[in-house]
Amino acid sequence: MDIATIIGLILGFGLIFASIAMGGGGLSPFIDAPSMMIVFGGSISAALINFPLKNVLGSFSVVLNCFFQKIPEPKALIGEFKELAQLARKDGLLALEQKSDSIEDDFMKRGIESLIGGTPADELRETMETELGCIDERHSMGKKFVDAMGAAAPAFGMIGTLIGLVQMLQSLDDPSKIGGGMAVALLTTLYGAVVANVVCIPLAGKLEARAKEETVVREMIIAGVAAIGGGATPRAVEEQLATFMAPKSRADVGAEAA
Amino acid sequence: MDIATIIGLILGFGLIFASIAMGGGGLSPFIDAPSMMIVFGGSISAALINFPLKNVLGSFSVVLNCFFQKIPEPKALIGEFKELAQLARKDGLLALEQKSDSIEDDFMKRGIESLIGGTPADELRETMETELGCIDERHSMGKKFVDAMGAAAPAFGMIGTLIGLVQMLQSLDDPSKIGGGMAVALLTTLYGAVVANVVCIPLAGKLEARAKEETVVREMIIAGVAAIGGGATPRAVEEQLATFMAPKSRADVGAEAA
Amino acid sequence: MDIATIIGLILGFGLIFASIAMGGGGLSPFIDAPSMMIVFGGSISAALINFPLKNVLGSFSVVLNCFFQKIPEPKALIGEFKELAQLARKDGLLALEQKSDSIEDDFMKRGIESLIGGTPADELRETMETELGCIDERHSMGKKFVDAMGAAAPAFGMIGTLIGLVQMLQSLDDPSKIGGGMAVALLTTLYGAVVANVVCIPLAGKLEARAKEETVVREMIIAGVAAIGGGATPRAVEEQLATFMAPKSRADVGAEAA
Amino acid sequence: MDIATIIGLILGFGLIFASIAMGGGGLSPFIDAPSMMIVFGGSISAALINFPLKNVLGSFSVVLNCFFQKIPEPKALIGEFKELAQLARKDGLLALEQKSDSIEDDFMKRGIESLIGGTPADELRETMETELGCIDERHSMGKKFVDAMGAAAPAFGMIGTLIGLVQMLQSLDDPSKIGGGMAVALLTTLYGAVVANVVCIPLAGKLEARAKEETVVREMIIAGVAAIGGGATPRAVEEQLATFMAPKSRADVGAEAA
Amino acid sequence: MDIATIIGLILGFGLIFASIAMGGGGLSPFIDAPSMMIVFGGSISAALINFPLKNVLGSFSVVLNCFFQKIPEPKALIGEFKELAQLARKDGLLALEQKSDSIEDDFMKRGIESLIGGTPADELRETMETELGCIDERHSMGKKFVDAMGAAAPAFGMIGTLIGLVQMLQSLDDPSKIGGGMAVALLTTLYGAVVANVVCIPLAGKLEARAKEETVVREMIIAGVAAIGGGATPRAVEEQLATFMAPKSRADVGAEAA
Repeated sequence: MDIATIIGLILGFGLIFASIAMGGGGLSPFIDAPSMMIVFGGSISAALINFPLKNVLGSFSVVLNCFFQKIPEPKALIGEFKELAQLARKDGLLALEQKSDSIEDDFMKRGIESLIGGTPADELRETMETELGCIDERHSMGKKFVDAMGAAAPAFGMIGTLIGLVQMLQSLDDPSKIGGGMAVALLTTLYGAVVANVVCIPLAGKLEARAKEETVVREMIIAGVAAIGGGATPRAVEEQLATFMAPKSRADVGAEAA
Repeated sequence: MDIATIIGLILGFGLIFASIAMGGGGLSPFIDAPSMMIVFGGSISAALINFPLKNVLGSFSVVLNCFFQKIPEPKALIGEFKELAQLARKDGLLALEQKSDSIEDDFMKRGIESLIGGTPADELRETMETELGCIDERHSMGKKFVDAMGAAAPAFGMIGTLIGLVQMLQSLDDPSKIGGGMAVALLTTLYGAVVANVVCIPLAGKLEARAKEETVVREMIIAGVAAIGGGATPRAVEEQLATFMAPKSRADVGAEAA
Repeated sequence: MDIATIIGLILGFGLIFASIAMGGGGLSPFIDAPSMMIVFGGSISAALINFPLKNVLGSFSVVLNCFFQKIPEPKALIGEFKELAQLARKDGLLALEQKSDSIEDDFMKRGIESLIGGTPADELRETMETELGCIDERHSMGKKFVDAMGAAAPAFGMIGTLIGLVQMLQSLDDPSKIGGGMAVALLTTLYGAVVANVVCIPLAGKLEARAKEETVVREMIIAGVAAIGGGATPRAVEEQLATFMAPKSRADVGAEAA
Repeated sequence: MDIATIIGLILGFGLIFASIAMGGGGLSPFIDAPSMMIVFGGSISAALINFPLKNVLGSFSVVLNCFFQKIPEPKALIGEFKELAQLARKDGLLALEQKSDSIEDDFMKRGIESLIGGTPADELRETMETELGCIDERHSMGKKFVDAMGAAAPAFGMIGTLIGLVQMLQSLDDPSKIGGGMAVALLTTLYGAVVANVVCIPLAGKLEARAKEETVVREMIIAGVAAIGGGATPRAVEEQLATFMAPKSRADVGAEAA
Repeated sequence: MDIATIIGLILGFGLIFASIAMGGGGLSPFIDAPSMMIVFGGSISAALINFPLKNVLGSFSVVLNCFFQKIPEPKALIGEFKELAQLARKDGLLALEQKSDSIEDDFMKRGIESLIGGTPADELRETMETELGCIDERHSMGKKFVDAMGAAAPAFGMIGTLIGLVQMLQSLDDPSKIGGGMAVALLTTLYGAVVANVVCIPLAGKLEARAKEETVVREMIIAGVAAIGGGATPRAVEEQLATFMAPKSRADVGAEAA
């Protein structure tokens, strides 16, 4: 679970509500169901036109996965692979079966189980890399979706404001209604700006960062599974996986190992 | 027929009309023939200046094709090719004639018929790839056209609003007309924003997604026709075509085959 | 002469004038000499600062050429080359002299005349390709120029509007003049938007499309001249040139040939 | 310490305060705590959503490092390496130990110490290049962060202004409050524009320039350490390092050396 | 000296002043020292933050050089090199000394002098190409600087306008001051738009065009010096240098030579 995103969202919306509260007049002038409907519903309708139905549904799961799916820690991963390599060298690949149930990450578990099942290391690496390609594509699809929502929300905000302005201008007879009418008209622009700038645009950035992180970990897993399948020593496995890490963190692993 | 596009368009326009209805004052202040004329006509005139006449006409058919043309399902396609491969191995290529009439997709049908007619597999693959290149170019032309319309509509919306504002400002003597004049002036901006953000921009995204999908299916067909022409076994045909699919869907095909 | 551009320009400006006429108040509030001066003159002055003098002059001729220069039809071109190839095979390259006067396209004519004059096919191809490179560069220069004008016009429109607003705001004493002052101030923005969106941006698109079309035809001519110089048969010339065309049009040529 | 940045920041903010002072009315109308809160806090919250927590913290140190970390002067560096090369050729690599304490730059010091410690030149070069890759990535991360802040600040400025406008418009009953309300509403837009245009956008440019400069110096150090490790003569070291400098500065080094 | 830039600048500013004059009210409402200060000073302060100090100073000289430095005419250059080649073939490289003083272009002069001094042609070509690389980098630095100024000026214009609006809105008590206040507030936006659109953006375009032109001439000089150093005949030198020119101009040189 990504803690910075939670803090950021709470902080962002908290500041907006605090700013509304400090201005006086309470929260009620800022809540308008039809305005919300046109901005949120409109963005969703644009997404439905923009993407095939299965991508729309898939993108929601990518976004959720991105926050709730646990990506294994690189350091812990190296330790786990060292243990597996030791076991495999001592008692053969079949001995990995007793450990495979305790592997938390599904991608790694399936890889190890294929090894036990007798899939040659080369073939397995290729299959896993193809799957990684699909994971990457799903991630970039998710980012594209959030980007499109971040562009659609302000556009529907503007459409809502234009509708509100036309309605207000048509009934200028009662000057006391001008202010209220304009205030309501501006709400959709405000909603669109909040959806885009507090949620979608930063979220797209986080999705990209998480996807990059996950790709590195997945590549470590592929390298680790292939190394064990090729009969590498625990030391060789460690060294190979450490090349995926930044020098600083690598030094930490070395220090712990020493 | 792409169902998400229909839902999205109905939802998008539905929300806009609902939002207008809820604001009171009815739909009539939002309908203005000259405003529509300048936004829609203007966008079309910009398209005529921007693209050669044949591309303008071709783009409309690309957009329509994209929604009404049926792209074969990858899974069904694999099944169909397996059957054809079986038949071809048992009774020779000429035996495919009895099946070729029942092939729905025109591109595939022509490929199989060329095989029956004796075109060598290599030459046929080349011809089909050239045709696929032309299909791709037509698709990207269609997307470019919709993108250009999506940029022209808000521009003509602004031109219409400026014309309306100048007219309103010239006759400020009667203050009661200011509101109505501005309301009408803003209508073109509203039309332009709706055309661009509810129709053109999301449609361009869908065109791109559909083109990508079609290209994969067309490449599967080319690979399948070439494999049958080369005398591959049904099993080999299936395996070769399955590489075009994502691992998950591939597993489904395998499961069904088992 | 590109008919779509003419229709588009007439339609675009026609719609704008119709929209002005329908609004009442006539055309006169929309005509203001100083406003035109600052938008049109300003865009030209920006072009003079932006491009070397010879490019400014050259760009005008590129734009005009693009509409008035006749590009040979690919199909007619193939026929013409077949005839020339027949003649050259029967009576030698010198016999082409009698035909060379009737070649309309200057680029092709010069190529054939060089062949007659004894330039080897290889050397001629190289010279013609260098010249094509220069034609391409001139075209892309022309597009760049029109793009720059399309960016400068709205900018000078805004400068003019700001000047008008400052002048109007300085003399707020007489409220009856506010409307007229603002109306005049907005005219430059309107002119800038029209120049950019009705003329420059779509024109840049057409220039690109025409340049692409001309390049294909010029490459066909180079291939044809080289093939005749190399003593190819009429049939070989036809086949070679047909590869430059889309399969559909190619089928038409074949059908006609049959 | 980069002097131009300091001068630029003082000049930029000085001009803004001077402009406020000259306008009369004092500084107080321009200071509004909630407005600052929403712009600064909002930008930080967007950064937290956009980047993983460790990158947010890392980016601050990159920005600070960039201004306070001393990058060695190329010319001084060449002199230092010449001395070290002389010493190493005369008394062996171990003799460098007496000099290594006086090396100010940490990256160079660690390189020389590894040499003394017996790391082969080839291996050391590789390690140092990997580290340089990480430094480059950190720099580009820092630039990306500042760019994101420069995009978020005006967005939150607009959100703040919309909130203020809605509040003001809701209470139009008292016309005397309109001006003050709008003035406060505009403050967030002003803060956002200042943060983006006076701080973030130019700072991102400087970060890029500094990163480029540091990379060249780090590459010089790597080349220098490798050359000494390979037993190059002082003259060879000087010539090799000089190729990293522009011809003009290179001439200066030559002149000094002569 | 680039005449089109001078004409463009005079025309652009002339039109703006003419437009102000025609509007009545004179020039004085358009001159406001604090407004100029914040736009011009602010842009300079942004440049100081954005670029290292030496680049800021260097960029001014690049911009000036670009207009006042004389680039040799390609045709004249070919003539000059032919003469030098003749002399070198007849009396040896040392004989070039008598001519070298009359070479106007500094880059060419230094090249010829190095030839006389005995630098081998290959080595000299390399040195000259490195120097050309530095000249190119300086030019692109200059363009980047002007681009940054063109982006900073409108930003500071907006900051100035926001400051003015806040001050005006704070003192709405006296309605007669509203117009004047807004007029002054808008001046900074006007200044920013003029600096960006009349000066910086077109100037960046001209810098690019001039840099391209100079690079071609410098490459001709390098080729010419290398050819003379390699003992080429005047005819070979002419032919080699002519390949740098467009076919049309090349024909002119040929015609003159004939």
